[in-house]
Amino acid sequence: MIPRYSRPEMSALWEPESKYSIWLEIETLAAEAMENLGQIPAGTSAAIRSKAKFEVARIDAIEAEVKHDVIAFLTNIAEHVGEPARFLHLGMTSSDVLDTCLNVQLVRATDILMSGLEQLLAALERRAFEHKLTPTIGRSHGIHAEPTTFGVKLATFHAEFQRAKARLQMAREDIATCALSGAVGTFANIDPRIEAHVSAELGLTPEPVSTQVIPRDRHAMYFATLGVIASSIERLAVEVRHLQRTDVLEAEEFFSEGQKGSSAMPHKRNPILTENLTGLARLVRMAVMPAMENVALWHERDISHSSVERGIGPDTTIHLDFALHRMAGVIENLLIYPDRQLGNLNQLGGLHNSQRVLLALVEAGCSREDAYRLVQRNAMKTWAGEGAFLDHLRGDKDVCDKLSSDHLSGLFDLDYHFKRVDHIFTRVFGRSDA
Amino acid sequence: MIPRYSRPEMSALWEPESKYSIWLEIETLAAEAMENLGQIPAGTSAAIRSKAKFEVARIDAIEAEVKHDVIAFLTNIAEHVGEPARFLHLGMTSSDVLDTCLNVQLVRATDILMSGLEQLLAALERRAFEHKLTPTIGRSHGIHAEPTTFGVKLATFHAEFQRAKARLQMAREDIATCALSGAVGTFANIDPRIEAHVSAELGLTPEPVSTQVIPRDRHAMYFATLGVIASSIERLAVEVRHLQRTDVLEAEEFFSEGQKGSSAMPHKRNPILTENLTGLARLVRMAVMPAMENVALWHERDISHSSVERGIGPDTTIHLDFALHRMAGVIENLLIYPDRQLGNLNQLGGLHNSQRVLLALVEAGCSREDAYRLVQRNAMKTWAGEGAFLDHLRGDKDVCDKLSSDHLSGLFDLDYHFKRVDHIFTRVFGRSDA
Amino acid sequence: MIPRYSRPEMSALWEPESKYSIWLEIETLAAEAMENLGQIPAGTSAAIRSKAKFEVARIDAIEAEVKHDVIAFLTNIAEHVGEPARFLHLGMTSSDVLDTCLNVQLVRATDILMSGLEQLLAALERRAFEHKLTPTIGRSHGIHAEPTTFGVKLATFHAEFQRAKARLQMAREDIATCALSGAVGTFANIDPRIEAHVSAELGLTPEPVSTQVIPRDRHAMYFATLGVIASSIERLAVEVRHLQRTDVLEAEEFFSEGQKGSSAMPHKRNPILTENLTGLARLVRMAVMPAMENVALWHERDISHSSVERGIGPDTTIHLDFALHRMAGVIENLLIYPDRQLGNLNQLGGLHNSQRVLLALVEAGCSREDAYRLVQRNAMKTWAGEGAFLDHLRGDKDVCDKLSSDHLSGLFDLDYHFKRVDHIFTRVFGRSDA
Amino acid sequence: MIPRYSRPEMSALWEPESKYSIWLEIETLAAEAMENLGQIPAGTSAAIRSKAKFEVARIDAIEAEVKHDVIAFLTNIAEHVGEPARFLHLGMTSSDVLDTCLNVQLVRATDILMSGLEQLLAALERRAFEHKLTPTIGRSHGIHAEPTTFGVKLATFHAEFQRAKARLQMAREDIATCALSGAVGTFANIDPRIEAHVSAELGLTPEPVSTQVIPRDRHAMYFATLGVIASSIERLAVEVRHLQRTDVLEAEEFFSEGQKGSSAMPHKRNPILTENLTGLARLVRMAVMPAMENVALWHERDISHSSVERGIGPDTTIHLDFALHRMAGVIENLLIYPDRQLGNLNQLGGLHNSQRVLLALVEAGCSREDAYRLVQRNAMKTWAGEGAFLDHLRGDKDVCDKLSSDHLSGLFDLDYHFKRVDHIFTRVFGRSDA
Repeated sequence: MIPRYSRPEMSALWEPESKYSIWLEIETLAAEAMENLGQIPAGTSAAIRSKAKFEVARIDAIEAEVKHDVIAFLTNIAEHVGEPARFLHLGMTSSDVLDTCLNVQLVRATDILMSGLEQLLAALERRAFEHKLTPTIGRSHGIHAEPTTFGVKLATFHAEFQRAKARLQMAREDIATCALSGAVGTFANIDPRIEAHVSAELGLTPEPVSTQVIPRDRHAMYFATLGVIASSIERLAVEVRHLQRTDVLEAEEFFSEGQKGSSAMPHKRNPILTENLTGLARLVRMAVMPAMENVALWHERDISHSSVERGIGPDTTIHLDFALHRMAGVIENLLIYPDRQLGNLNQLGGLHNSQRVLLALVEAGCSREDAYRLVQRNAMKTWAGEGAFLDHLRGDKDVCDKLSSDHLSGLFDLDYHFKRVDHIFTRVFGRSDA
Repeated sequence: MIPRYSRPEMSALWEPESKYSIWLEIETLAAEAMENLGQIPAGTSAAIRSKAKFEVARIDAIEAEVKHDVIAFLTNIAEHVGEPARFLHLGMTSSDVLDTCLNVQLVRATDILMSGLEQLLAALERRAFEHKLTPTIGRSHGIHAEPTTFGVKLATFHAEFQRAKARLQMAREDIATCALSGAVGTFANIDPRIEAHVSAELGLTPEPVSTQVIPRDRHAMYFATLGVIASSIERLAVEVRHLQRTDVLEAEEFFSEGQKGSSAMPHKRNPILTENLTGLARLVRMAVMPAMENVALWHERDISHSSVERGIGPDTTIHLDFALHRMAGVIENLLIYPDRQLGNLNQLGGLHNSQRVLLALVEAGCSREDAYRLVQRNAMKTWAGEGAFLDHLRGDKDVCDKLSSDHLSGLFDLDYHFKRVDHIFTRVFGRSDA
Repeated sequence: MIPRYSRPEMSALWEPESKYSIWLEIETLAAEAMENLGQIPAGTSAAIRSKAKFEVARIDAIEAEVKHDVIAFLTNIAEHVGEPARFLHLGMTSSDVLDTCLNVQLVRATDILMSGLEQLLAALERRAFEHKLTPTIGRSHGIHAEPTTFGVKLATFHAEFQRAKARLQMAREDIATCALSGAVGTFANIDPRIEAHVSAELGLTPEPVSTQVIPRDRHAMYFATLGVIASSIERLAVEVRHLQRTDVLEAEEFFSEGQKGSSAMPHKRNPILTENLTGLARLVRMAVMPAMENVALWHERDISHSSVERGIGPDTTIHLDFALHRMAGVIENLLIYPDRQLGNLNQLGGLHNSQRVLLALVEAGCSREDAYRLVQRNAMKTWAGEGAFLDHLRGDKDVCDKLSSDHLSGLFDLDYHFKRVDHIFTRVFGRSDA
Repeated sequence: MIPRYSRPEMSALWEPESKYSIWLEIETLAAEAMENLGQIPAGTSAAIRSKAKFEVARIDAIEAEVKHDVIAFLTNIAEHVGEPARFLHLGMTSSDVLDTCLNVQLVRATDILMSGLEQLLAALERRAFEHKLTPTIGRSHGIHAEPTTFGVKLATFHAEFQRAKARLQMAREDIATCALSGAVGTFANIDPRIEAHVSAELGLTPEPVSTQVIPRDRHAMYFATLGVIASSIERLAVEVRHLQRTDVLEAEEFFSEGQKGSSAMPHKRNPILTENLTGLARLVRMAVMPAMENVALWHERDISHSSVERGIGPDTTIHLDFALHRMAGVIENLLIYPDRQLGNLNQLGGLHNSQRVLLALVEAGCSREDAYRLVQRNAMKTWAGEGAFLDHLRGDKDVCDKLSSDHLSGLFDLDYHFKRVDHIFTRVFGRSDA
């Protein structure tokens, strides 16, 4: 975890205090269930709830000796609770606690990520409607293609992050399980009703069958989903970086007063937030492969997944959370330059209408091949910087044989391209008016 | 694509013939819709349906000249269809065809994968019920832990591949979209109703907003899902490999008569299918990272994703399909050795009951710490090969103070561990009887 | 392997014929060595050399029965060679042949890659000297920074591909080993002098210690190296794609006469080769992770690496080879537009000299903080489009107190930035004159 | 960075204090060089050396305002140094400091890794010689193959980590470069002799051509190399885990007195260190892909690599360092059980001699096919548990026609397999005697 790319709300979740609190919650709920089943003395869970405490440093000290974290934790709890502590963890195995705890942490992390996604979606929606009809040139292969609007551009990201939200919801379900099934998952020494109680209280679903651990295909799917979301962030980051290039400059990250762009070149305003987000996407994505390698544990379990999860559990959720909030801020405050966008759009002398002309020629009776040739020979002159496309077309006898001058002019109407923006907005946002 | 790891049903889907057939289907359906809208002459789509043909070699030849695959295809089609061909592809962009086609291929590939998954699930279910109560030692960290049954072991995989199926279903929905939205996705030159018609006929959903391409976060999610499924295959493959080790030999891949295990050591029967599956899992998984890198296309699209998809589209689905069928066969024909499983289970002189003894001691009034110490000092003797665990316990005065000899014997009852197997089976299979 | 991204020279190397020829070479050389050691009858290797043949289809048929490729191969050979064939493969294990063969293939593939690298280096060098002093704006963060030359830009790639060459040479050494050490690498049934002979004849080094297989850390290093080289190709591809953007247009991929950029927009000239190369880089890179996962084979070997290598062995070398040649062609034929480069350089009204002005102010006695402020307040006006930077500086009293108008003009001399280009060229190319 | 997987020596290197110390070193050396060239007043560097100090908290505070780390650092230094501070950083760009510093850190990290590798090599060598002739069964595919020695097994790892060392040395050279070349690498405002001086003093090589940043193919190669080394660690970890399986138990990780293997099963001694190392290998390896993605920076640089390196720079070196030391300890203290190894070796009733018998039959005139059949039919009986292989052979008339009973017995001599162990040791260690 890189402190500068973390937000306290998320990183707190991964602090030892949070982990031990969840452990205690699980152990206490399990005791409560055992009590309900008459397996341990009445009053045990109440006693635990009133007396249980832990000290991270003390747990560390015990663990240094016994080399087992759950035993260290239970020993520390027993120091505070006394006698009733011996009814804790009965029939349970360490993984019952560890794995259920990890899933609780991931579920909570997911809820935080979800709220970050919602902020980003809100920012995208607001700015999309703000620029619903701001003309901008669409580019394929980095080459000017046909006009679109800046609002439509943002709508594509809104739709993508709506998918991200749906995927995150699925991923949440995937890891929202609980297992208290004992040493090899047979419930030999623990009644399944205990698992049911703990699951219900924690808002989790009982794992249908566990081995000692909760199966790691769930976590693989979870981190893979985060990797996809990070890739969507990368796409938006790359878009902003492109737009901010000196040669394009259709939008810019907000640049605060005191900020210095370069130690050497005082005029520079760099898209450092989105460049940073591009890198953060790589950091999030790198968890995917080890999470998948974690699936094939040996027999009923081995512990090779553990060190990996100590790393990627906190790091990936923390960095993605930070990235979502940073990106929401970038979009919220993005400086958008409509004039520049229009200027760039017109830079090619009207070539972005070439397809319309081609279609009009076909409609007027040309074969597609001939129409293509006619369009291309005029387009190439404009491309070479020799004047406006419309003028060349008007001067081409073969074109004029098919299309009148007025008809040609009409083909250069910009609004023509935007007639279905409302339709697109309705598809994406469920409405076309702000 | 590696021919030896492919099945004809899946690989046919990725042949040029399949691709061009789908292209033709899309173009014809689009013409049909245009006709319905009165945009092109009545009878056009019928003419196309009756006359359209293509020749792969001819398309290749044209493409070599024009360096554009869709134009080459349309030119070849026009050679057969004549006049009405000029109404094909009107207002469409190449990606409308290419991307919709890729998704059709992926959807069909998914349906084949789904049927492979079902075969594997059926095999797992049959063998699980067959060995529902076959005692086997559960192992954590490769070390004997407590008894479980071979059926429960297989049930864990059944549950995992049920999840795989649900995930694959989600992934199918993710890529089952269609876009016919024109050069930058604005529908400037193509009515959205055409997209609606083609989508409906192909069993797809219209992409809410496309840019020229269908957004690649969909494909990233798709291949990530395949990577997770491959990882589950790896887990099962690794399990079989472990079971077949000479030192374990609790199960073996079926070994046919003519088969030779080694050019040098004729006695060898190697788990080559599951070793192979372990490698295939890596091959499938390697598509995940490039699929994620494909998401951040520049502006309204660049074509960097294309070469990647030409590779991972066929290879990943073909290899995973092959792997699912190979794995289904491995499980279907697996040689399972209950005697050997029981022999191994008893190898540790009853140590797998150590936890039961510990719990009984706690119940009898020991502190958990004391119980642990008592159990461990007797367990260590058995571990060192100095006789059965039960005998040591019976000879330990501190133990006998708490537990009678009969009580101790009862703790070594094997069936104790299986009392919830029915419960587990009901959770996983929805029933506990075969 | 994707046919359209393969060159016959490289793909031939991976055909079954090539593989079996190498197998035969290894077996025959081994027989020759055994003969020299008097272990098999004199004349055996001569008999094999004169009679041995194989038929791929026949080997396939035998393998279908015996399920063992080397046995199938030897059986087919024996069908042609007769009696002396029984002296083939004595004391050897299949992997002795398979692994040594794979390394021979990788060595030969590497030599082909090396020649591709050399072509790319030659193209970069020629174009770098051609544009050694072509002024172009350097960009950091996509923002105009200070002037450099197009030749220096290309020199950075030349230096990088020189490193690629050195790395490939190291990787070649890493996999240029031979093992003929028997079933578990003990040479129990094969004299190490046989390995020595085969190694020497094949231009390989004997593997110091093998287990049955040649250790896979070698192959992991090999594919990792190819991944790094692919990443360098990606950097160059991305550079060209940026330069070809409509908004930049400082260079373009060569565009042949018949080529069509878009089915819809006839004016488009898209950087499709370098976009394609960006994707190919991802395809090459995806081999790295499975190659690393292949290292941890179980005990003396398992065969999980084999399916992976059947995929990545051919695919990765074929695609990288294709990419190197394609990239060499892109650079060789790149259309470079010096006028446009100069135009873009001047687009910011001289702001690229801001650091020089800042340094001059510091030299004239300003604190760095004051100088920064003076520069920035004038730079920001030009940035806002309000005229040339030099004019603003000349009109700023605080600046003029420190720097005379002539001094200021001198700071805007373009050649100032190029005074060390010769020095850089000498470092990179060993000479500064073409 | 996960604290429990870090050693202070390595993690200290990545603390802010270390970084700023190196920055100060670079800036001061640069000033020294400028002074030598007469570009700044004599005595400047001495003044800096005597007065310069920094406070991490103060730098953080300034950075929070100016949002630029190098400017914040220089401002803090200036607060201590006063007037001469304005001669710091002249003509330099931030990356000159940052990138050179990163390389200094990586070089120092590499030296620490190198010493970890040496410890591991020493442990492997000691234990290899200790068990040079300890018979152990070699296993391919997890199946017993032929005998080898535990020393040879360890020798394969020694050879592999020798290669790791050579690779790490190459990787060190790859990142041991220094760049002080200004805003776009043209040395426009900084004399190359300054770079030469700083390089020499820091033990680095000047980067032949930089752009503003040191090219990231170097770092990609560096982290790829670490990934390969981690994979070798994984292979050794997996070997130990296999050996420690209850069903094998030929070796065990050292198990200290107070250690508890399981909260539930007190008898368990789990290979938790090597399982942990398996996971750490994944953590190290996951840096490879983002490091490769970092190569393709835009034009003369973008800053997307920076967040990635803030993560993988410390994490990867810290975790690999920890892993090397942990692994050295595992090997140093490994409990090795020769009796158990011999017991396992003999478990198959002599089948591991099958190849020798096959070869003897061929030598005695059998065709390879016949020999194979004869061996297999007897081997299969032993495999089925029906007595010793030698006995079956002696009872097989067809075998006895070819080989006498004494000849057969001789083929079961264990030492036969070890006659070239000295040869192998000499290849690997340069000597065969301890």
